[in-house]
Amino acid sequence: MARVHNFNAGPAGLPLPALERAQRELLDFEGTGMSIMEHSHRGKAFEAVHNEAISLLRQLLGLSDDYHVLFMQGGAAMQFAVVPMNLLPPGRSADYILTGGWSEKALEEAKRVGTVRVAGSTAVDKRYTRIPHQGELSLDPNAAYVHMTTNNTLFGTQWHWLPDTGDVPLVADMSSDILWRKMDISRFALVYAGAQKNIGPSGITVVLARKDLVDSARKDIPVIFRYATYAANNSLYNTPPTFAIYLMRNVLAYTLEIGGLEEVERRNRKKGELLYETIDAHPDVFRAPVEKESRSFMNVVFRLASEEMEKRFVAEAAKEGMVGLAGHRSTGGIRVSIYNAVPVASVERLTAFMRDFAKRG
Amino acid sequence: MARVHNFNAGPAGLPLPALERAQRELLDFEGTGMSIMEHSHRGKAFEAVHNEAISLLRQLLGLSDDYHVLFMQGGAAMQFAVVPMNLLPPGRSADYILTGGWSEKALEEAKRVGTVRVAGSTAVDKRYTRIPHQGELSLDPNAAYVHMTTNNTLFGTQWHWLPDTGDVPLVADMSSDILWRKMDISRFALVYAGAQKNIGPSGITVVLARKDLVDSARKDIPVIFRYATYAANNSLYNTPPTFAIYLMRNVLAYTLEIGGLEEVERRNRKKGELLYETIDAHPDVFRAPVEKESRSFMNVVFRLASEEMEKRFVAEAAKEGMVGLAGHRSTGGIRVSIYNAVPVASVERLTAFMRDFAKRG
Repeated sequence: MARVHNFNAGPAGLPLPALERAQRELLDFEGTGMSIMEHSHRGKAFEAVHNEAISLLRQLLGLSDDYHVLFMQGGAAMQFAVVPMNLLPPGRSADYILTGGWSEKALEEAKRVGTVRVAGSTAVDKRYTRIPHQGELSLDPNAAYVHMTTNNTLFGTQWHWLPDTGDVPLVADMSSDILWRKMDISRFALVYAGAQKNIGPSGITVVLARKDLVDSARKDIPVIFRYATYAANNSLYNTPPTFAIYLMRNVLAYTLEIGGLEEVERRNRKKGELLYETIDAHPDVFRAPVEKESRSFMNVVFRLASEEMEKRFVAEAAKEGMVGLAGHRSTGGIRVSIYNAVPVASVERLTAFMRDFAKRG
Repeated sequence: MARVHNFNAGPAGLPLPALERAQRELLDFEGTGMSIMEHSHRGKAFEAVHNEAISLLRQLLGLSDDYHVLFMQGGAAMQFAVVPMNLLPPGRSADYILTGGWSEKALEEAKRVGTVRVAGSTAVDKRYTRIPHQGELSLDPNAAYVHMTTNNTLFGTQWHWLPDTGDVPLVADMSSDILWRKMDISRFALVYAGAQKNIGPSGITVVLARKDLVDSARKDIPVIFRYATYAANNSLYNTPPTFAIYLMRNVLAYTLEIGGLEEVERRNRKKGELLYETIDAHPDVFRAPVEKESRSFMNVVFRLASEEMEKRFVAEAAKEGMVGLAGHRSTGGIRVSIYNAVPVASVERLTAFMRDFAKRG
């Protein structure tokens, strides 16, 4: 089997050892005579996997006991609604910082739930090429929360600092860069992330929520959408997506095995540097639209001279086993997604191709 | 590998060939060099699987073009809220028929969204041992919809007829018996089902919705909860649980391969008859609390003389490779879940054990 170099934007590539482990025990999980998918979510076999996934997340992130680790369904798109349903009571307002298409979607959905304000935006002609500075933000000191998107997959920008929101809880969509390096989660009141970029398959959403925030959240919404329901039931109120949790467990266990987030960060920085160096070394061929200090280490975005040339770039790379390089349908260009599971070797392969492509012109 | 006889109530056993197919191609889906989990949900490879799953459901059910087939997340528990959010506008009321714990939960969640009425209940001392007759129902001709649960996993009852609701749309939670036999879906305005009993792993929910009902549904709710969003985007508005859809596709393809729902029904009736015959043949040892015409062909529930004897029954069966037989924590007793994937041979093995157990006393 020849595995390709997978630069997909998400669902993304997964670590091969995590998949191989799943393959080995797919019909018979740990000698129980059935697949992990066929186990009851209330049985010992699954519960051990479930709890291991939670404790691996705690360990990798160095998460304090002040936080719940919750598993939900529906991805970030569902959290766009669930966050304000829980945290935005009538009579209050929430602040949204816009840095890309996903934060815009989060804002639009929150508008359908309650009152929101735009506390900052770096959009110019509907495009975002940088992260704002603190001085550009107009934060409401009475806001129910401030919402931000830590990494912007469409435009290839990433926050490398965190806004000071004072006493206002900071809420972050971290779908596309959770666990890309060690992060101080205590700066956030709530973090949510669809797993399908850095930590698992699609179909499972991780929520890290400060306990006091969960306790004071709205209770006038359906039980299934309350963070408190998941917190009180160890995320087993209803049947969870058991296989997705199992596979995320495999990915997290592998992450710890290779050295935890220090090693993950080392690899991710290496991959990003290789790509940006290659782009910057050929300004006549590759153009990176993002301001240097806002560049993403998860999604490296660049343009070529014409759309035709971009199509040729994507097609030629695909022939050499490198896939997933076309930019998002809404932005065009080239997007190289280099999430945690993308090997450094794949990026070395790609940058060699880029140098060759530049030479040929 | 010795596969056990899996009588789990859900997540339930899956057809071995569907799992073997997944195992074979887990690292390399159809020569693409990556797992189906690593494919973009907007790429050709996944889209073909996605569309095949939809068309297999249409084909197996003989579903007319008047219906959408939608894939959502969150299970039946999320539909308990999403149904009234879409279909119950302010100023209207919805009717709920109670036949067990799940319909009670659906009612409780709907109360948090709008105005509801109990249109019938067969509860006696909080237990349900039968399905109501038409004459027992008090239906509101102006109701926004009537909600029912076609099969009740906790108490082992199943509707073998359908209520006449006149012009009022009939909505059914079919999580635990969808595809157990051919059913006339045109009798329903909307059907929802978590996949993890009869048609796939947990983490994926199937919704069959009449198009006119989706068109007239509420538009003042978050986009992510609107049936219309899923209908307009072929259930690809946001990232779906791709592996769960893939595995459901494998199960549905296998279902067609063995002869479709005619063969599935033949096997399911055979399994149910074997069990009920064995119970009825030993009234001194096994007691089936459910009225005969309400007996479920998915969950066969019975009691023994004492809880101690029930524990012994479960423990001895487990020693012989038969698992998942303990009743729900809220009801006790024995529950044999014989969903589509449970082989007739497993039930033959169990009934032989039951006869032997009865003889030994």
